[in-house]
Amino acid sequence: MQAIIISVGDELTLGQTVDTNSAWLSARLAELGTMTRAHLTVPDDQAAIVRAVRQASELAEWVVITGGLGPTKDDLTRQALAEVQGGPMVMHAPSLAKIEQFFKDRGRVMTESNRVQSLAPAGAMVLDNPQGTAPGLRLAVGRAQVFSMPGVPLEMKAMFEQHLAPLIAAQAGRTILTRKINTLGIGESMVGEALGDLMRRDRNPVVGTTVSSGIVSVRIRSDFPTRVQAQAELDRTASAVKDKLGTAVFSEGDVSLAVVVGELLQARHRTVATAESCTAGLVAAMLTEVPLSSAWFLGGWVVYANRMKTEALGVPSELIAREGAVSEQVVRRMAAEALQRSAGDYALALTGVAGPGGGSPEKPVGTVWIGLGKNMAGQVHVAAERFLLFGDRAMVRERAAKTALNMLRLELLKTDDR
Amino acid sequence: MQAIIISVGDELTLGQTVDTNSAWLSARLAELGTMTRAHLTVPDDQAAIVRAVRQASELAEWVVITGGLGPTKDDLTRQALAEVQGGPMVMHAPSLAKIEQFFKDRGRVMTESNRVQSLAPAGAMVLDNPQGTAPGLRLAVGRAQVFSMPGVPLEMKAMFEQHLAPLIAAQAGRTILTRKINTLGIGESMVGEALGDLMRRDRNPVVGTTVSSGIVSVRIRSDFPTRVQAQAELDRTASAVKDKLGTAVFSEGDVSLAVVVGELLQARHRTVATAESCTAGLVAAMLTEVPLSSAWFLGGWVVYANRMKTEALGVPSELIAREGAVSEQVVRRMAAEALQRSAGDYALALTGVAGPGGGSPEKPVGTVWIGLGKNMAGQVHVAAERFLLFGDRAMVRERAAKTALNMLRLELLKTDDR
Repeated sequence: MQAIIISVGDELTLGQTVDTNSAWLSARLAELGTMTRAHLTVPDDQAAIVRAVRQASELAEWVVITGGLGPTKDDLTRQALAEVQGGPMVMHAPSLAKIEQFFKDRGRVMTESNRVQSLAPAGAMVLDNPQGTAPGLRLAVGRAQVFSMPGVPLEMKAMFEQHLAPLIAAQAGRTILTRKINTLGIGESMVGEALGDLMRRDRNPVVGTTVSSGIVSVRIRSDFPTRVQAQAELDRTASAVKDKLGTAVFSEGDVSLAVVVGELLQARHRTVATAESCTAGLVAAMLTEVPLSSAWFLGGWVVYANRMKTEALGVPSELIAREGAVSEQVVRRMAAEALQRSAGDYALALTGVAGPGGGSPEKPVGTVWIGLGKNMAGQVHVAAERFLLFGDRAMVRERAAKTALNMLRLELLKTDDR
Repeated sequence: MQAIIISVGDELTLGQTVDTNSAWLSARLAELGTMTRAHLTVPDDQAAIVRAVRQASELAEWVVITGGLGPTKDDLTRQALAEVQGGPMVMHAPSLAKIEQFFKDRGRVMTESNRVQSLAPAGAMVLDNPQGTAPGLRLAVGRAQVFSMPGVPLEMKAMFEQHLAPLIAAQAGRTILTRKINTLGIGESMVGEALGDLMRRDRNPVVGTTVSSGIVSVRIRSDFPTRVQAQAELDRTASAVKDKLGTAVFSEGDVSLAVVVGELLQARHRTVATAESCTAGLVAAMLTEVPLSSAWFLGGWVVYANRMKTEALGVPSELIAREGAVSEQVVRRMAAEALQRSAGDYALALTGVAGPGGGSPEKPVGTVWIGLGKNMAGQVHVAAERFLLFGDRAMVRERAAKTALNMLRLELLKTDDR
């Protein structure tokens, strides 16, 4: 059984709203063992909706429509479904009563246009909307079951769980399970080479890669008749992927790098502080996205102006004048000062050229020095590395911050629990 | 002339990634006077891509494809386009040379799979990608012009502006222009009340509101036969909107609050420093998203642990013990210390309860104290205000940071140029 998702709305085809419903529905359908063959988005245009529904019902067994069920003149999904059916629209008395009650409860005046929401194509089943006034619809078109729900995510999600999920789960003859394995520090093509035959397109589970904000993620999709088999094969492929990629793998799913670093610090009872120039608080902000980060994050210095490097953090102005603010010596001193002044176990220091200006032949835009200081029995040790990061200002800053967190992660992996 | 947008990727039809490219492309196409008839999303499946391209090229004059041009085996858009053309793939020598140079510049090893990115269907025009290694493609399918670009938003946007926008603008017969006016500090319903009849749906230009991350934006869309008329009516409506909303309006379009604050500081030759507890670097990171922010941003202190408040910033530990870290007295002292230690003109200080834990009946999650310090002829003045912000940890932090920036913006509006 396969599905096609149709989203209806001018706001979507005008680009005023990003469609999040289709992704949510696809993810839920996959969990229920049903593949989404396509997403199709059309404007508030009856002919376009009719064409989309006809085409989708030839290609898939489930057609899930969101949007176009509101009370205004630009809401045309009901009429389009009646046209597809070739029959009239009829008033659904329980829906009308519910809408009347909704307005009465709120002391609001019900307008004539709200009555439209209780119309349904003859022969359609009306689906209760526990969260709003627009009921949904279910009807058969050829071999396909067509469902129509409001576009409001809260209402759509509640109706999907109540009306569609049980049906779809019952009829799916197979289970699709997915995992996403996140890596940092190696490029997409190197990940592809490392995975080799695991990425063959005719393989099941199938393995693919995507890149987002410098993170290369490996996606695995396992598609088998039974949940037990799908899970076992998924896990076997995930293990193979992880073996090939080693410590480049930092997490699975939506677990962020900062969460992973936080867990490692927490487990080892270590603390960290920051000293940031080019990233200017980004590393600290990422670390403190994690709830309860106060257990292992102390704080930091944002030393954007050179005067702040000297006066707030104690980096000698002569050193900056001699070596330049973006230099190994300065990043080493920043890390050492942050370590000592915070009395933490680790300190991350960053100084670089985020652009768009400020680059030179020796230090082009994207040049970032990162220092990792650690306190070893009272002795300060700093490892420093130079990176040339790709992208615009925002990307250079984000990649610099993630690269710093990754340096700390790799160091913590080599460190025993305290 | 109409367009259809095709997005390619398993991550989209599996619901692992939300497609933002289609909305961005639709908005740009509308600005260029071209309506989008549909969005179509298909998995990394050659037959599905071929079917989508064939169908789209029958329904629209412009077909814009994103995704499936990467170096790995699951990237199949190139092969699908060759199949649609019914011809072979050929090596594009300049693209291969560019990819080789890209890897050489970064001292990275070019793998065999990267060579695939320089293949193109015979007869296709190869489009330079100024931001990455995957070139785009342009080819004619029936009456339609088909464009294929990478799915990475940065690369896609740069290529659209360079290769497609000039062509499309030249061929469009009407003009749709939009403006977005951004407000902070008043709710969506108050914005709606203030705008009154300007929000009537039968009006042209049409006016609507959307909310994102605490910012209420007013969107105006002007649709007229000529650019001159569309522009004049758009500007007239925008002026009316701004008159009604006053200083709640902080910017237009995608201009961030930080950019506006930076421009005000720059114009007045003032500087700012930060002292952050709950936001932990977020205010500093937002301010330094702005290029050339070194002209007016000095740096700051991230004082997450109370020990850092005392030892790095000089907030007396007795004060913290007596009043609590989230208190008017502590935020005032943080602002005053940051102002004096940075020798800046302004200092923003924040301390609050971001959650999910840490709340109490007196200081529930969302409680944030914000202090704005200013140096007036050597005297330190601090204004402090308490806010109760709504949402989860990430929302409370983001709203706190924006509220702080807005306090500084409103202060700067009352300040003369130096």
